[in-house]
Amino acid sequence: MAVIKVHGHHGSTATVMVLCCLNEKNLEYELVFVDFFAGAHKTPEYLALNPLGLIPTIQDGDLTLFESRAIIKYLAKQYEGQGTDLLGRTVSEQALVEQWSQVEAQSFNSPVFFIIEQVLIAPIVGGSTDEAAVEIRVEKVGKLLDIYEERLSKSKYLAGDFFSLADLQHLPYTNYLINGCGKGDLISSRKHVKAWWEDISSRPAWKKVAEKMTFK
Amino acid sequence: MAVIKVHGHHGSTATVMVLCCLNEKNLEYELVFVDFFAGAHKTPEYLALNPLGLIPTIQDGDLTLFESRAIIKYLAKQYEGQGTDLLGRTVSEQALVEQWSQVEAQSFNSPVFFIIEQVLIAPIVGGSTDEAAVEIRVEKVGKLLDIYEERLSKSKYLAGDFFSLADLQHLPYTNYLINGCGKGDLISSRKHVKAWWEDISSRPAWKKVAEKMTFK
Repeated sequence: MAVIKVHGHHGSTATVMVLCCLNEKNLEYELVFVDFFAGAHKTPEYLALNPLGLIPTIQDGDLTLFESRAIIKYLAKQYEGQGTDLLGRTVSEQALVEQWSQVEAQSFNSPVFFIIEQVLIAPIVGGSTDEAAVEIRVEKVGKLLDIYEERLSKSKYLAGDFFSLADLQHLPYTNYLINGCGKGDLISSRKHVKAWWEDISSRPAWKKVAEKMTFK
Repeated sequence: MAVIKVHGHHGSTATVMVLCCLNEKNLEYELVFVDFFAGAHKTPEYLALNPLGLIPTIQDGDLTLFESRAIIKYLAKQYEGQGTDLLGRTVSEQALVEQWSQVEAQSFNSPVFFIIEQVLIAPIVGGSTDEAAVEIRVEKVGKLLDIYEERLSKSKYLAGDFFSLADLQHLPYTNYLINGCGKGDLISSRKHVKAWWEDISSRPAWKKVAEKMTFK
């Protein structure tokens, strides 16, 4: 079996999500470094792989695939018998995995990205942080995490009592939020969210990639 | 078989997406009207179904499910042998459906929502349209549609030569964009995008819900 190629960068949360999934599935991969700080994701060569010019993109045999959340779903399905099952077993379980994956993509992702952009990235690129705007997003994330808290008081993980893609999708941004932006209170002030985070962030598949994540 | 309950509203693009999918799958449903203009999605009864307070939510037997894109995936999978196949047959086909679904959710949805909010909703609620900000989003959507144009010059639909969830997801917002916001040029100026739109928007499953869509 040919090794899966991942075109990406450890500073990209989307790349890191995919690498974590590859580790969960015990899959070998080769990381093809895309220096996006130097614009390598906008070259004709890269755009031929992914016309959106975003990272990561994977190549697995004949298949070229982009969009991190699509990639991890593909890996979980294509290599279903191998490593951790990340999909759920029944159609109903899979539906709940999908539901909470969508909550991450639609409701968690955007305000957290805003916080990361303002707190972490703006100062690096010579800008300043709009504290009031950040505070609005922190409140928004807090309200969403109240819903997670309620949910996680009833099941160990978001979709049920099994670790799934829905949990995995939260790892990169939550790591930035806590360890890059100093917003760990959002997690540690909520008992079940805290226990969930401690559980999912201590998984070997995640720790292996997290230690290589760059915050700058 | 019990009829599937859809808690929603014809003025909600997410509800309309789900109804279109139910029609494609030839599934009977009962629309339970949630009057979100009157705040019916924030009542304790509704929040017990969907703690995020968003519509739609479906109930299919014992399963309660929210997030429109998760719901349509569930329907396509649970009723796989019935009506239109919306998933793709092979794992690779399914991966491409997922990829273009993610492009809709991550790259198409946000700027189009901004345009709809500014052009259509702002005047209704007594605000004014920020034309310059709209123009930025129109350009952004245009650039994305250039990528669709290239893609659709090679395959009839986004994920391949078969209609799928990825195409279906684009129906409600594109309809608003053309028929609610007067931005039809974005579609009609691109040959393959235009042909694609004419094709997918003339499907009976869509026409049945589109005629009930409210623009106000």
